[in-house]
Amino acid sequence: MKLVRYGAVGAEKPGLVDGDGTLRDLSGHVADIAGKVLDPASLTALARLDPKALPAVSGKPRLGPCVAGTGKFICIGLNYADHAAESGLQVPPEPVVFMKASSAIVGPDDDVLIPRGSLKTDWEVELAVVIGKTAKYVTEAEALDHVAGYCVAHDVSERAFQTERSGQWTKGKSCDTFGPTGPWLVTKDEVKDPQDLKMWLKVNGETMQNGSTRTMVYGVAFLVSYLSQFMSLHPGDIISTGTPPGVGMGMKPPRYLKAGDVVELGIEGLGSQRQTFRADA
Amino acid sequence: MKLVRYGAVGAEKPGLVDGDGTLRDLSGHVADIAGKVLDPASLTALARLDPKALPAVSGKPRLGPCVAGTGKFICIGLNYADHAAESGLQVPPEPVVFMKASSAIVGPDDDVLIPRGSLKTDWEVELAVVIGKTAKYVTEAEALDHVAGYCVAHDVSERAFQTERSGQWTKGKSCDTFGPTGPWLVTKDEVKDPQDLKMWLKVNGETMQNGSTRTMVYGVAFLVSYLSQFMSLHPGDIISTGTPPGVGMGMKPPRYLKAGDVVELGIEGLGSQRQTFRADA
Repeated sequence: MKLVRYGAVGAEKPGLVDGDGTLRDLSGHVADIAGKVLDPASLTALARLDPKALPAVSGKPRLGPCVAGTGKFICIGLNYADHAAESGLQVPPEPVVFMKASSAIVGPDDDVLIPRGSLKTDWEVELAVVIGKTAKYVTEAEALDHVAGYCVAHDVSERAFQTERSGQWTKGKSCDTFGPTGPWLVTKDEVKDPQDLKMWLKVNGETMQNGSTRTMVYGVAFLVSYLSQFMSLHPGDIISTGTPPGVGMGMKPPRYLKAGDVVELGIEGLGSQRQTFRADA
Repeated sequence: MKLVRYGAVGAEKPGLVDGDGTLRDLSGHVADIAGKVLDPASLTALARLDPKALPAVSGKPRLGPCVAGTGKFICIGLNYADHAAESGLQVPPEPVVFMKASSAIVGPDDDVLIPRGSLKTDWEVELAVVIGKTAKYVTEAEALDHVAGYCVAHDVSERAFQTERSGQWTKGKSCDTFGPTGPWLVTKDEVKDPQDLKMWLKVNGETMQNGSTRTMVYGVAFLVSYLSQFMSLHPGDIISTGTPPGVGMGMKPPRYLKAGDVVELGIEGLGSQRQTFRADA
């Protein structure tokens, strides 16, 4: 299934995109795409519905973030060998983990705000994993049982805030609108191999990132298991698994986003996003 | 006012502690101590209630975290000059900001779980600021208008996870139960000067930290303003402002917590916490 949340900011309704690409309303069945709705049993029940029997949604409503109630937006740093190299850093001996504020989450096509004072706003296409069932101290073999599905995430990053403003990356990762997610939460039954998905990102039509999750250093099952040794993962939590090469910071000379730039990004089978960047008011 | 949340985990009710120390039920007036209830106008309305007219709560119920709906648990590192020195680090030229998972939050007297594999679980008493009204790009002069009040926070930290397991502090800060908050949310009208509060922490009755918010490097108003330049702060967000000297990591030799240890901590006017540490199952 391709689960979505559609409608105005803060008033999104749950829906699904059927095999023909028609958006259908799920609000007669679930209140939101969040919490217990992400549990495997609940997703199985939803999968039994006949999509054609669900009301079709007319028009082209805005899509919101594909999951609500995200308590943790956990990100993995330097998780593609080539991206580590372009950043001038080694692949770490175990995953680098940092947190993005959940208040940064927006819909896949919402405008992204370049924060006041920013000179180094950069892009990162990432495969995001959405937790469906609480995971604590799970093994790698059990890990995918706790995953609801996958989506595209854009880990927008302000490099000066991230690395030139005293320790820790939080400041450069958590700005409002720096976490577009969606368009869809694709349930894991539809993703044959999360470690073999093409991914791409364009700035104003020019391809900047063109990679595959095949070159990910620490894979999805490992990451879910690994993180669950440190903290419980809860339904709706998002793990963004790092970005392949091609970010602005790694270019010579570096290249960053400015107001008016349009970024498009996508992952095979998970759909695409399109954001216009603008200066924050 | 001293606002509290009492009752079983996940089923806490809102209450207040009156001038005599009696716990009174607020659930006839507000659903929880969270979100819009933290707005200045709402707090003013609550302050007009006659506490004696509220139902007294019998017995000694468990206290939960004093605020619910915390989207962000933002922490400031090395914010006391003496603590930076004992950590062998310089006071940073601007605040070090990191995030603790909101899933780490527990009540003030709940057990704290020492994670599997932990050898370096450490303590940190901290003054926490609770946001009452959304803050974005606010000046230092405006900052306190966005604060609902203050509470004690225990920034429990696993030093090996924090500093010896590849970049970023998240892994050592976000473990389940590593964020006791409370007992009370003390509204800011009752805290004459947040920069002049004694604070202390004892392990098994022995005083380890004995400081004052007077030696904080970056004060509350500055921090609220500073953080709001990077991201919106929302009602219920918590900012934990760093710890004074006396953590286990800074002792010679370092000293860490083990199962059975009891940690008590408090801040002048904000009450105290008491946790038993035990091994996670």
